[in-house]
Amino acid sequence: MTRTTVESKTKTAIIGFDQPFCVIGERINPTGRKVLAAELEQDDFSRVEADAIAQVAAGATVLDVNSGAVFSNKMAEDPRYADNNFVEPMLMPQLIKVVQSVVDVPLCIDSSVPGALEAGLEACEGRPLLNSVTGEEERLELVLPLVKKYNVPVVAISNDDTGISEDPEVRFAVAKKIVERAADFGIPAHDIVVDPLVMPIGAMSTAGLQVFTLVRRLRDELGVNTTCGASNISFGLPNRHGINNAFLPMAMACGMTSAIMNPIALPVGPTKIAEKRAQVEAAGIVLPPDMDDEAFCQMFGLGSTKPTAGKEMEAIRAANFLTDNDPSGADWIKFNRLPGAAEGGAGGRRAGGRRRRA
Amino acid sequence: MTRTTVESKTKTAIIGFDQPFCVIGERINPTGRKVLAAELEQDDFSRVEADAIAQVAAGATVLDVNSGAVFSNKMAEDPRYADNNFVEPMLMPQLIKVVQSVVDVPLCIDSSVPGALEAGLEACEGRPLLNSVTGEEERLELVLPLVKKYNVPVVAISNDDTGISEDPEVRFAVAKKIVERAADFGIPAHDIVVDPLVMPIGAMSTAGLQVFTLVRRLRDELGVNTTCGASNISFGLPNRHGINNAFLPMAMACGMTSAIMNPIALPVGPTKIAEKRAQVEAAGIVLPPDMDDEAFCQMFGLGSTKPTAGKEMEAIRAANFLTDNDPSGADWIKFNRLPGAAEGGAGGRRAGGRRRRA
Repeated sequence: MTRTTVESKTKTAIIGFDQPFCVIGERINPTGRKVLAAELEQDDFSRVEADAIAQVAAGATVLDVNSGAVFSNKMAEDPRYADNNFVEPMLMPQLIKVVQSVVDVPLCIDSSVPGALEAGLEACEGRPLLNSVTGEEERLELVLPLVKKYNVPVVAISNDDTGISEDPEVRFAVAKKIVERAADFGIPAHDIVVDPLVMPIGAMSTAGLQVFTLVRRLRDELGVNTTCGASNISFGLPNRHGINNAFLPMAMACGMTSAIMNPIALPVGPTKIAEKRAQVEAAGIVLPPDMDDEAFCQMFGLGSTKPTAGKEMEAIRAANFLTDNDPSGADWIKFNRLPGAAEGGAGGRRAGGRRRRA
Repeated sequence: MTRTTVESKTKTAIIGFDQPFCVIGERINPTGRKVLAAELEQDDFSRVEADAIAQVAAGATVLDVNSGAVFSNKMAEDPRYADNNFVEPMLMPQLIKVVQSVVDVPLCIDSSVPGALEAGLEACEGRPLLNSVTGEEERLELVLPLVKKYNVPVVAISNDDTGISEDPEVRFAVAKKIVERAADFGIPAHDIVVDPLVMPIGAMSTAGLQVFTLVRRLRDELGVNTTCGASNISFGLPNRHGINNAFLPMAMACGMTSAIMNPIALPVGPTKIAEKRAQVEAAGIVLPPDMDDEAFCQMFGLGSTKPTAGKEMEAIRAANFLTDNDPSGADWIKFNRLPGAAEGGAGGRRAGGRRRRA
């Protein structure tokens, strides 16, 4: 049975067919988060700390740490700050140390800069997951020696020097090539976690079917664990959570064993609160003067102003149970007894299900 | 490509691997619904009419009509009213006529009484689905001739004279036997919709995996469509909807093409409304005197006092899209634009998904 072991100083996370799905929190990533990137440039790591704590509280068992930033305000001081190859090897160890100081889950060191990967491996306690190698020749030659030297598992993304193929056969062949090349370095298949690449279904209607087929083949033919950037599937579409909530269990039913994803529900923002307050006032409802935003959100069913576990986490817990990776449903039952957990319950529906004749 | 065609007087529903999932509404069923059974005994069909309309509005494309009742208050008048074999052949045509008078979707005639099945076939317009035959010798000999005579498709439940096996190999063998026996009657495999039988995961931890494996084998080896009583999977567990919402997409990813299920979210009941009104009052909130229950429920995020589509329908629509059975996501986009549809949307999250290096 394929098992990929990832460790922090004190905790172990196992990715495997006979394990609960491994949720790798994606939030610590300045790419596309301008506010975070600006804070990091000023050595402000408070948001990194908060994101680390919130993701673990929401159920992430591994945290991705991505150092993808350049420091444009420092370019006048030193033009090299415009270069990822200069910034990331400095930033990655800082991020890792901050995260390790507030949570104790294993980490996933995520960068396209090999120097940042190695600096991360030096700084990280335990046995992190390295993210990533691709089928590109240069990446294979730079990253696989690090994987071997530090004896860590690695995410293998199935694109190569020709780019990302829209043909799943080609993506499978790239994954196979990486697994074979790793074997040449003495790296076992159980230390390769393949990302078959998830395309947006809004742009490619077969994107879901491609992933389901690839994940099954990667499991059956190569015996490897799999991961993906799960939210890519719903890019550009309305009600993205609705699609993600179905996609994750479907991928799990086909054998997907982990995902790099956001485990946190977006906190209710000031715009939504203001809209609802206006609606409440227009309806002639009088609130007590001391009702703060959090109490208001809870009372009117908006959610919370604080980070809470996203609906995707409920879907994953259900799918763990349905794939027999939650013995006796202990985790499901515990999760659904927490205050504020999803509504419903056995009492909410007639008990018998559908009558059966036997 | 396997296609099972079901028809009403004016509408066609196709069950197939290349079709949107077929939702067969299960609500018209007096079994375990004492209020409904009592109403039927008094020739009150108003709830049947309302359930038919609400299920179609929620997205059911076929309605199951189950006549499983005895009329205990009429036993003094005639002791045969205690016998399903007496009551159901009279009741089934009545139910079918009532349903056909208010909606125009194809029907699924559901009874354990062969006389009720035949009476239903006589009364029903179009090409209904017959529910069901099993692997029991007596049922095979009674029901398959009806299937042949009326040229209708049939649900085949994979239990036989030995009962329901917990061994999926046995359930597969029973399904195969029914398909073969049907062939002897000249009934093609595409007119058999196999129900592999869904056990509660609370009682059998492998119940989910069993269904996923069986559905794939039934599709790959026998080429048949499949259905199930979907809510059985979560029987006895907290937050049943959370499990059902994951189970349906997972089964669809494995090839399940229909389910007999409740497409309607339970309307908010008086107890829940009373609890919330007490909570609102305790918080010092003053409501306008004319705020009715429906407006109250909407305002405070409880849902609706009227029947609305359940979350399962959102999961199924997402899974249709993900299995490439919703061209260009037209149905998904339409559904998520409806007023009162699920919250969220493209604007709710950062647009880029996870950064990819290619």
